Amino acid sequence: SMFPGVLSLCCRPSAWDRATRPPPSPLQPPLAPCRSFSNNKIQVELDESSGVAMMKFKSPPVNSLSLEFLTEFSISLEKLENNRACRGVIITSAVPKIFSSGLDITEMCGKSVEHYTEFWRAVQEMWLRLYSSSMVTVAAVNGSSPAGGCLMALSCDYRIMAENPKFSIGLNEAQLGIVAPFWFKDTFVNVVGHRIAERSLQLGSLHPAPEAHKLGLVDELVPEEKLMEKAAAVMTQWLALPDHARQLTKTMMRKAVLDRLRAHREEDIKNFITFVSKESIQKSLRMYMEMLKKRKS
Amino acid sequence: SMFPGVLSLCCRPSAWDRATRPPPSPLQPPLAPCRSFSNNKIQVELDESSGVAMMKFKSPPVNSLSLEFLTEFSISLEKLENNRACRGVIITSAVPKIFSSGLDITEMCGKSVEHYTEFWRAVQEMWLRLYSSSMVTVAAVNGSSPAGGCLMALSCDYRIMAENPKFSIGLNEAQLGIVAPFWFKDTFVNVVGHRIAERSLQLGSLHPAPEAHKLGLVDELVPEEKLMEKAAAVMTQWLALPDHARQLTKTMMRKAVLDRLRAHREEDIKNFITFVSKESIQKSLRMYMEMLKKRKS
Amino acid sequence: SMFPGVLSLCCRPSAWDRATRPPPSPLQPPLAPCRSFSNNKIQVELDESSGVAMMKFKSPPVNSLSLEFLTEFSISLEKLENNRACRGVIITSAVPKIFSSGLDITEMCGKSVEHYTEFWRAVQEMWLRLYSSSMVTVAAVNGSSPAGGCLMALSCDYRIMAENPKFSIGLNEAQLGIVAPFWFKDTFVNVVGHRIAERSLQLGSLHPAPEAHKLGLVDELVPEEKLMEKAAAVMTQWLALPDHARQLTKTMMRKAVLDRLRAHREEDIKNFITFVSKESIQKSLRMYMEMLKKRKS
Repeated sequence: SMFPGVLSLCCRPSAWDRATRPPPSPLQPPLAPCRSFSNNKIQVELDESSGVAMMKFKSPPVNSLSLEFLTEFSISLEKLENNRACRGVIITSAVPKIFSSGLDITEMCGKSVEHYTEFWRAVQEMWLRLYSSSMVTVAAVNGSSPAGGCLMALSCDYRIMAENPKFSIGLNEAQLGIVAPFWFKDTFVNVVGHRIAERSLQLGSLHPAPEAHKLGLVDELVPEEKLMEKAAAVMTQWLALPDHARQLTKTMMRKAVLDRLRAHREEDIKNFITFVSKESIQKSLRMYMEMLKKRKS
Repeated sequence: SMFPGVLSLCCRPSAWDRATRPPPSPLQPPLAPCRSFSNNKIQVELDESSGVAMMKFKSPPVNSLSLEFLTEFSISLEKLENNRACRGVIITSAVPKIFSSGLDITEMCGKSVEHYTEFWRAVQEMWLRLYSSSMVTVAAVNGSSPAGGCLMALSCDYRIMAENPKFSIGLNEAQLGIVAPFWFKDTFVNVVGHRIAERSLQLGSLHPAPEAHKLGLVDELVPEEKLMEKAAAVMTQWLALPDHARQLTKTMMRKAVLDRLRAHREEDIKNFITFVSKESIQKSLRMYMEMLKKRKS
Repeated sequence: SMFPGVLSLCCRPSAWDRATRPPPSPLQPPLAPCRSFSNNKIQVELDESSGVAMMKFKSPPVNSLSLEFLTEFSISLEKLENNRACRGVIITSAVPKIFSSGLDITEMCGKSVEHYTEFWRAVQEMWLRLYSSSMVTVAAVNGSSPAGGCLMALSCDYRIMAENPKFSIGLNEAQLGIVAPFWFKDTFVNVVGHRIAERSLQLGSLHPAPEAHKLGLVDELVPEEKLMEKAAAVMTQWLALPDHARQLTKTMMRKAVLDRLRAHREEDIKNFITFVSKESIQKSLRMYMEMLKKRKS
């Protein structure tokens, strides 16, 4: 036959499911040359031999997305993005039981318009960088992940979650009386489709891990102790592809949704400020903060 | 920990599946203060204690969507929409075995252009009001629901169907030699996705209840005698959310599709008139009417 | 009752699943009056009694989509499209184990800009004609179907695949270091949705038949020896619908994606030429061709 090579090349099944087996070369603990930098809230370790970085959220008690956290996240991601030795990032939490609790409410309460502007721009920046990252991004969701925490997981290329039914994930903004921004919604629809997104967003649902998996909100569940091993195996699978083709394909899939926020960024900030400046919203937030303080004491 | 409240609030799973259990406080029969108004074809009962209205189609033999039915539906819905005591509507049928048979063919046969215009505008109005309703809308589909009947169910927030395989639902226009308008299609795609819609619309499929559930066309099946109890339980679940956030979220999800008809409403009426005025279509409709009359006698 | 006919007509379930049974009148081997024309690479047989044509790819070893193959395909399809006796087409392969290996790499290697232009226009033409065909199109995928071969299957109205796990299908361009054009992607998203498409395209996945079925990439699997019988049964089911309504419905579903290429056709050709003219790409292709020649000898 004339093109046996074409046949065998083209017909080799790719590793869609192969990642369910143990990885051929799992990421080693930092025996390999490894650069680590940690600021305040996120610990970053890059294994230069594999080209894979680990970003661990370590901002107890709940890894809430404060201005400081978000700024550090965007800077860390940009550093990795510009490091040619880094081809993939695994994001996970160093805090037990919680991946991230989402946006920090204290940043929205009793602050100046300047502060709200800076905060919201940082939220946008985090998403724009993560959703458009040229690196392979894998979320190892090792705890609950409501609201903004869910958005971070949704923005990765692949989501693995600990199969603990006590951990839940979802865009639950409606339960708090607020509305997820349109780009949260767009990201969600791209993952689970219109109908599941419509129902889940209206109910502000937090889906326990097994349900989240059934709905396609996360790609797979593994026992918690296997989570990092599995994340490494998935990363190995994705890094087997040539970077350039994979990156252009990712851009093709995500550009429309990214461009929508890029085109309406200032408008989106204004909407946030208008919303958060309402006396009724401030009152709710203050009451909520009081309740938290009382519980604390 | 600093924010135990945030953690517990954010990580409380919402009631995605909780509605499968008996409702904590089912809607009671009209012991509670209850306003009822009935015109000709639709019976409306509002339970002011729960804030839930029931709209029952009672236009035998098949609840077909005549101009009179559609006008009454839109007026009834508007009344409820403007009644601050009403937060949700359950729509169902008082006619055994049929939810609604869809558009009334007699309205399209041998009438004037003025009549066609008025009729089609009433069809549009029904959908625009129902799909954009600020209330929680639940369809309790207790019988077959072809064409326009299916559209009404698709336009609600949630669909429960009696698990009787003799009841079927679908946009079967193609089987009658006609084409579903683009906004029927858009509504369908938003519920079941592009592929299922493409196949189902081209085949003009009427899906028996179990198949409809499998395809996502209805959200759940229950034994017929449990249908109203289940609809009340689902309503309770949806009404647990703060109205304002839920309404804005619904608008965000549905606005694009609603705006498409709003922008092309007159054009859509013209298309309908051109279609229905064709001699070939009128001939088919007359023959069909003759057949019905003969069967009747 | 007033409209018993409407009720019984509207409530007759359509044949969504009925095709799983043996067909009532399977296409017979050419006993019926039958016109056959075969050029070089594709054999076409039209059974005028049923209105169904069979197009069999017979371009060994792997039915690669050369300029000659694509031209012949478009001309054959156009002939059938213009033949009022023909209402449906089944496409399949006469080469064992392979449906089509996709675009012919030799057409992209060391040729002139004029040749690249002609070739890419032929690829576009094939897709524009197949995806917009007014006939019912059924793919009987009786072998592996990577890249352009997968696109052809995705462009039909219905896909049946031999349930042989050695046969795989997918848009695996990323594995070869290239990017699927946007209209390959659009067609894929219309079939499997955004998330599955995003993951599969980035990984360049070739899905074994059972996985392809699970993902919705093919509509059903049957034992290889039943494939043609099943294709005929599905065709019978689709041809039971009135042509005009089915065609308009198909256009409504596919127009947006077709129009996107129609509006950007010259730009898409330029993109292809820029890509294929790169020294790095030509070098890869030359090395790949050398490898194939060596394997051959």
